[in-house]
Amino acid sequence: MKKLKRSGRLVDMTHFLLQHPHEVISLTHFSERYHSAKSSISEDLVIIKEIFEGEGYGSLLTISGASGGVKFIPRIHREQAEEFVNDVIKQLAVPERILPGGYLYMMDLLGNPKFIQRLGQVFASLLANEKIDAVLTVATKGIPLAYAVGQFLNVPVSIVRRDHLVTEGSMVSINYVSGSSKRIQTMTLARRSLAPGSRVFIVDDFMKAGGTIRGMMDLLEEFQAELVGIGVLVETVEVEERLIDGYMSITKLSNVDVRNKTIKVEPGSVLELLQTVEVEEKK
Amino acid sequence: MKKLKRSGRLVDMTHFLLQHPHEVISLTHFSERYHSAKSSISEDLVIIKEIFEGEGYGSLLTISGASGGVKFIPRIHREQAEEFVNDVIKQLAVPERILPGGYLYMMDLLGNPKFIQRLGQVFASLLANEKIDAVLTVATKGIPLAYAVGQFLNVPVSIVRRDHLVTEGSMVSINYVSGSSKRIQTMTLARRSLAPGSRVFIVDDFMKAGGTIRGMMDLLEEFQAELVGIGVLVETVEVEERLIDGYMSITKLSNVDVRNKTIKVEPGSVLELLQTVEVEEKK
Repeated sequence: MKKLKRSGRLVDMTHFLLQHPHEVISLTHFSERYHSAKSSISEDLVIIKEIFEGEGYGSLLTISGASGGVKFIPRIHREQAEEFVNDVIKQLAVPERILPGGYLYMMDLLGNPKFIQRLGQVFASLLANEKIDAVLTVATKGIPLAYAVGQFLNVPVSIVRRDHLVTEGSMVSINYVSGSSKRIQTMTLARRSLAPGSRVFIVDDFMKAGGTIRGMMDLLEEFQAELVGIGVLVETVEVEERLIDGYMSITKLSNVDVRNKTIKVEPGSVLELLQTVEVEEKK
Repeated sequence: MKKLKRSGRLVDMTHFLLQHPHEVISLTHFSERYHSAKSSISEDLVIIKEIFEGEGYGSLLTISGASGGVKFIPRIHREQAEEFVNDVIKQLAVPERILPGGYLYMMDLLGNPKFIQRLGQVFASLLANEKIDAVLTVATKGIPLAYAVGQFLNVPVSIVRRDHLVTEGSMVSINYVSGSSKRIQTMTLARRSLAPGSRVFIVDDFMKAGGTIRGMMDLLEEFQAELVGIGVLVETVEVEERLIDGYMSITKLSNVDVRNKTIKVEPGSVLELLQTVEVEEKK
């Protein structure tokens, strides 16, 4: 790349950092790329840091030492997360969403890449200080969420399936009890798709009793993998017995009245959790 | 937002433009956000344009008139695309990928958000001048590709399924003949998930004879939707009769020798197509 002035460097570095979250980028990398002194690069980074942190795009950590450099950690401000959660609630509460049997149509939200990106940003923000190696979800609707989280955390995605495909190689299968229907079902994960010992974040779109997520947790044990956290877009409140705890939720569905066509949705646990993270970090 | 100097504005505008591809952003938006004169904003945009276009991140179009402003169109330079395609070829040719029956394990690539983003960028670059309303794919493996393309084009994603879910509402089903196995199968798409008259880009991970994509094309007719283009990550060369034409492919799989454990992969059509687009635009 040709030598750039500060203005050009700022544009290029902003682009680069956004594409490389959770990666340590050495000052040497930038200084060679722009043929500029490290002291100038450091000054550039101060400007970027101020905007990123002020506007809630994330934090810019400076890592000192020989292998030092800078690391962009995507985050979201709590007020922005609150705005997002309220918007999700408003959108979920639209009566046209109600399907026969009291199910909710959600593909308009799940099909929207911008919505999915924002979701990923909220979860990634809550996981900013965790060491995570992979994001796990179950086909089909959890997939976009998992990729959004994976993108912000810069880690691969593994997909659990309910069928068995010839294009996946050897697979590990487990049986699990679907919490609400009490039926026994099977889920499988390709042996190659998750490294043993991985630290895993599980994400899904919808959780009733939590049987599917419980199943994924059992599957993790087969891979000697470790669960770091669980995130869902919608949890339902009216559940006899929840099979898991300690999860993060964007929203809580408290009631779907099919006859009167009303849907009651409340904020999930993410807002409170974001506040806790902020308070802890200020200590 | 408080008043910013040029350096701060450049960081914030770069972030904003990258998050809002294919959207017209008025100069007023930026000038109000930063409490700066439109003439200063215009100068900022010249700097951003130079870096974005020079480094192959995309183009920055200036739209004049009352509803005018600036639009970021994600693209990739042909040399960068070539580098990516060659890297895909190298990665696909690893013998460990071969599964019983001559299938290839690909989830390591498809599970990598960065890889998927690059793929999305290549397809979005080829579609830079097209009007597209939605990206269509079939569950499961096409989903991450579809979201990456949808993200760069800033359009929603619709997912065709092979089963029928209660959480999708009324669905349109069609039968199709899988090109290679000649079996009749069913695919469904939720009525609500694609607006009638949409202009659609179809994307999938793998194509043999093209029966699945042919099926999606038939499904589009049921929605009075229009096909704008088709993209696949891998096409196979040894096919008796291809059921579709006019598609873009990243790579061509010409041979999988199970006995000798060798895989032959060649570049697909995207590189040539990128060159054609570049030549046309220079006219």
